[in-house]
Amino acid sequence: MAVYTEVADDALSAFLSLYDIGEAVAFRGIAEGVENSNYMLRTTTGDFILTLYEKRVDPADLPWFLGLMEHLAGQGVTCPQPVRGQDGNALRMLAGRHAAITTFLPGVWPRRPQVAHCSPLGVALARLHAAGESYAPRRVNGLGPAGWRPLLERSLGRADEVAPDLGEELSRVLDRLLGDWPQDLPEGQIHADLFPDNVFFLDQRISGLIDFYFAATDLLAYDLAICLNAWCFEQDGAFNVTRGRALISGYQSVRPLTVAEADAMPILAQGAALRFLLTRLYDWLNTPAGALVTPKDPVEYLRKLRFHRHARGLSAYVG
Amino acid sequence: MAVYTEVADDALSAFLSLYDIGEAVAFRGIAEGVENSNYMLRTTTGDFILTLYEKRVDPADLPWFLGLMEHLAGQGVTCPQPVRGQDGNALRMLAGRHAAITTFLPGVWPRRPQVAHCSPLGVALARLHAAGESYAPRRVNGLGPAGWRPLLERSLGRADEVAPDLGEELSRVLDRLLGDWPQDLPEGQIHADLFPDNVFFLDQRISGLIDFYFAATDLLAYDLAICLNAWCFEQDGAFNVTRGRALISGYQSVRPLTVAEADAMPILAQGAALRFLLTRLYDWLNTPAGALVTPKDPVEYLRKLRFHRHARGLSAYVG
Repeated sequence: MAVYTEVADDALSAFLSLYDIGEAVAFRGIAEGVENSNYMLRTTTGDFILTLYEKRVDPADLPWFLGLMEHLAGQGVTCPQPVRGQDGNALRMLAGRHAAITTFLPGVWPRRPQVAHCSPLGVALARLHAAGESYAPRRVNGLGPAGWRPLLERSLGRADEVAPDLGEELSRVLDRLLGDWPQDLPEGQIHADLFPDNVFFLDQRISGLIDFYFAATDLLAYDLAICLNAWCFEQDGAFNVTRGRALISGYQSVRPLTVAEADAMPILAQGAALRFLLTRLYDWLNTPAGALVTPKDPVEYLRKLRFHRHARGLSAYVG
Repeated sequence: MAVYTEVADDALSAFLSLYDIGEAVAFRGIAEGVENSNYMLRTTTGDFILTLYEKRVDPADLPWFLGLMEHLAGQGVTCPQPVRGQDGNALRMLAGRHAAITTFLPGVWPRRPQVAHCSPLGVALARLHAAGESYAPRRVNGLGPAGWRPLLERSLGRADEVAPDLGEELSRVLDRLLGDWPQDLPEGQIHADLFPDNVFFLDQRISGLIDFYFAATDLLAYDLAICLNAWCFEQDGAFNVTRGRALISGYQSVRPLTVAEADAMPILAQGAALRFLLTRLYDWLNTPAGALVTPKDPVEYLRKLRFHRHARGLSAYVG
């Protein structure tokens, strides 16, 4: 929730002169997106988003992300489209950051996910997976299983500040998860961060998916497990099986899960909970006073992780 | 730089149903405005700003602010216009906060003020003062001279954490300023916070003034002194007399300063510097870890205050 990098007027004008989208008419920082600086940019020809990529994004990955967004759109998935400059490039430097202009998508993200959101979400996720099949370049998921132990080790010394014996609990869970992690499930391009604030709705229908900057090549069903975590828990921490059923049914209406994927859902969901727990834990312990971003409570994901540890098969999520 | 209060989808829909501006098509938090939560709201009929008033704004003052904005617009000052609901009210509750919809103004605020901005700024400020003459209701400036001692006392115990002997220096300055503060200068409605992020430009011309939530009835020349502080210093702390001259000339082209106002400019500018120094000092010392807003450095305004203490007459600002 922040704008980390300010763009001087003359720098913005010079930047826009490299495109054919007219001149700035409005330019306001957006208080959404934790990782990058985003601006709502209106020009004399239309509305756009200007993104300045901040430190957590590896510039070497940016062509992969932008290429994926273009590819998905070509396959009918509504997502922001990189706008190319007169030189044909969508990516260049601005205010010392890598930056890109993308198209502006209408829609409102659901502040309180409801059952009615979950079926369209499942459909959209499965369509994204299908559309990604023909995008050949791969990107290793740095926040996938291989990244979890280094991530935990950065917080292990202080994890118990967040919950009693948390370090020991997470070490045990991690050992078991890495041992049990499924090896032969279908892989493809996953969004990997499809939380409610990345899904826009208009009239109960999805109008677009945004923020592909965690996307990677990984297990498709793991992406669904991330959505189960992000969309299907009540604010009091209870799992809402009606939402889970709607999400998974929607997904399967486009891409039926294999038996192995269905059986693996509890372990995938544990992995997804652990992944967000670990990044939140690190941020919680390392956000300096006066930071632009309020760290999210890691305990929310500890509760979710514990729920998934007691889940048995897909039925735990669909009732 | 923040959105403090989230608005649930159904709450937003219910809120919009009380207006005749259509349904939400886009709704994004704006990362600008330190005091309130602001959303860019696009509906099926146009663009608006939705503001939720947070704790620093006294709800009892809101009708005065909104009335001032309507009045100024009626006098030709381009500023956000409160949108009235079907019941004729512009102000109601949303997500537990007082809230209002205002019109969206195009324009880009200057991240780096230049000389070319200062003359139009001076003209706009003087026109605002002229337009405010016929707005009869008064609002005491809570951050005017009478508010400075209580504000300093809240930070005095820890002021020296920010700069050596700062508490003693500010106490001395305050005593002298309150003794010397001019009593008989022309009063009227002042913006009182006309920093660059509240002034939109399009094609080098001012397209609108925003954020009237510090406006009050106070000395007109004090508003100009605030702008001298906010617009006319270089990033290295030096006063830019070319900008000062442009600002003051622009102002005087609409409303010439009286001799007493011109003579009082150094003391008014000291008061303006002290006012922002005191609120920044308090925020600096009291912003909790992980807050949504990064406190601004009070030392910037300490340097400005010291500059004004050595200024002699209006010539210090116009060369």
